[in-house]
Amino acid sequence: MSKRQSWRLVRRPDGEISDDDLSFAQEDIPPLADGDILVDVDYISVDATNRIWMSDADQYMPPVKIGDIMRAGVAGKVIASRHPNFTAGMTVGGLGGYASHIVASGDLFGSLPDVPGLALPTLFGSLGGTALTAYFGLLKIGEPKPGETLVVSAAAGAVGSMVGQIGRIKGCRVIGIAGGTEKCRYVVEELGFDGCADYKAGDLGAQLDALCPDGIDINFENVGGDIMDTVMQRMTNFSRMPLCGMISMYDHLTEIQGPKAWSKILMNRIRVQGFIVSDYMAEFETASADLVSWALAGKLKTREDVRPGLDNALHILRDLYRGGNNGKLLIKV
Amino acid sequence: MSKRQSWRLVRRPDGEISDDDLSFAQEDIPPLADGDILVDVDYISVDATNRIWMSDADQYMPPVKIGDIMRAGVAGKVIASRHPNFTAGMTVGGLGGYASHIVASGDLFGSLPDVPGLALPTLFGSLGGTALTAYFGLLKIGEPKPGETLVVSAAAGAVGSMVGQIGRIKGCRVIGIAGGTEKCRYVVEELGFDGCADYKAGDLGAQLDALCPDGIDINFENVGGDIMDTVMQRMTNFSRMPLCGMISMYDHLTEIQGPKAWSKILMNRIRVQGFIVSDYMAEFETASADLVSWALAGKLKTREDVRPGLDNALHILRDLYRGGNNGKLLIKV
Repeated sequence: MSKRQSWRLVRRPDGEISDDDLSFAQEDIPPLADGDILVDVDYISVDATNRIWMSDADQYMPPVKIGDIMRAGVAGKVIASRHPNFTAGMTVGGLGGYASHIVASGDLFGSLPDVPGLALPTLFGSLGGTALTAYFGLLKIGEPKPGETLVVSAAAGAVGSMVGQIGRIKGCRVIGIAGGTEKCRYVVEELGFDGCADYKAGDLGAQLDALCPDGIDINFENVGGDIMDTVMQRMTNFSRMPLCGMISMYDHLTEIQGPKAWSKILMNRIRVQGFIVSDYMAEFETASADLVSWALAGKLKTREDVRPGLDNALHILRDLYRGGNNGKLLIKV
Repeated sequence: MSKRQSWRLVRRPDGEISDDDLSFAQEDIPPLADGDILVDVDYISVDATNRIWMSDADQYMPPVKIGDIMRAGVAGKVIASRHPNFTAGMTVGGLGGYASHIVASGDLFGSLPDVPGLALPTLFGSLGGTALTAYFGLLKIGEPKPGETLVVSAAAGAVGSMVGQIGRIKGCRVIGIAGGTEKCRYVVEELGFDGCADYKAGDLGAQLDALCPDGIDINFENVGGDIMDTVMQRMTNFSRMPLCGMISMYDHLTEIQGPKAWSKILMNRIRVQGFIVSDYMAEFETASADLVSWALAGKLKTREDVRPGLDNALHILRDLYRGGNNGKLLIKV
């Protein structure tokens, strides 16, 4: 067991990720330095932000270096440890990469508890980093108040589905935006949103006008582009806009232009604020406890889209940007 | 004394304000309704936001109606009152218009105290609405901390000059942006800013790099457009951007596009927040007391550019958008 399979970044994608941007190979597992752990990876979290890390545009973490294993959140079992917090056999989650085995500093990992009733893909996938992103973005920046109208784009996605459900828990009227009848049905009937606009069905503005007659108090922004502009035009005075992502624009990160509705920020005194989940690391434990208790109480429904095969990673990742996933997207190694 | 002179909006400007957009005429002073006061106007505050009120773009107050007297902040003496708070002879300031006499609800006015050492143009002009705008935008949204770098555009202007000086009082390193050597000299030598970039001198980015080696923690944004983009590219993690105005874009309000640096808001977790001074009306008294005490203590230098002649109002107003004023622009009626 001294070999592993891994995806390495060989050049920065120009537009959509192509097969030639990363290389898949078998290689020796490197030795552990002091403080490192070796993790046998069970699940890889496939996240929109992966595309940011591939680019060299100005970003919130250093870009992945050319030649390095492509970065990703992973969960698995510790096989060997030279870090005081970990011993072989522990189940852990943290920042690893698209590989069957990861050697990395133990500081980037935490142990995953055994929660009866919650399988690892749910605990690590649906209730992991993406749920924490939803939690902190909505509660810290969105500041939801009972009776307010919350709109969340990419509503059937890993973050959006959590944002909407947490918004409901906090007493908001929650309207999703998703692409297609089935995603909208899922969001309303299974997740309990108050409504969902289908951006593929035409005239998103008219749909939002009907669904949000009193305007939009919180826009949890995941996508950017035209959808963002359409939502912003309907935001109320003193409304908030946690800026979580702009998945529609990641293929051309350096060319992103701000919203056409820019003057609304002034006229309606809107607060727009970007955030990254790791900024709230000190509060992860409390937040995870909330998320797990809501899930166990049936208030937070989860769904994972688990795809087998590390060798198939690029197809799976591209599917995320096309909206082809149904729930939190994970690769089972 | 039953006649007055007034400027009425006859059509909405398309681009720069033209002579045919407003009409100047002599007319009867209307009778007072219950709750009204009649003010003999001494000074009219010429403010960037006047251009917004002339347009019918979505805005924070109702636009001025076609045919109405053009709205403006005014100071003067009460001649007659049917409002319980006011009696003839009181000096008042409030929301009136470009006219020699204003009949309006007393609810839109407040009495101006007699402060020894501060003339009316200083108290009403420099330390009035524009100073309150600077005060609340900087303190409530900018949240300045000692040692932080604050950049303010339109630094020699009525709002910008106050923002920079209040930033200095709060312990910030303050860098202005102004147009031309003389304005930059004024800002540094007379107002005590730590530096000033001259946007007319070319390569604003390089000037800011030299003046703000550790990046920009607060961008008090007054102008929009290319200057805003250049500043935003240099904002630090967790920096704040009170969005006070976008004077460079008021001629084409409906076409304002957001910053090219939009993705910086996400990557650097910037908070962008629009505000309007009237949102903080409940705290005006405390704020005014601070401003007056700082001015009397010599910590807050003021300068008014008082121009005579109500009939000359359009020339004076246009000069504001060309940056032709030196200090808080007022019309002496």
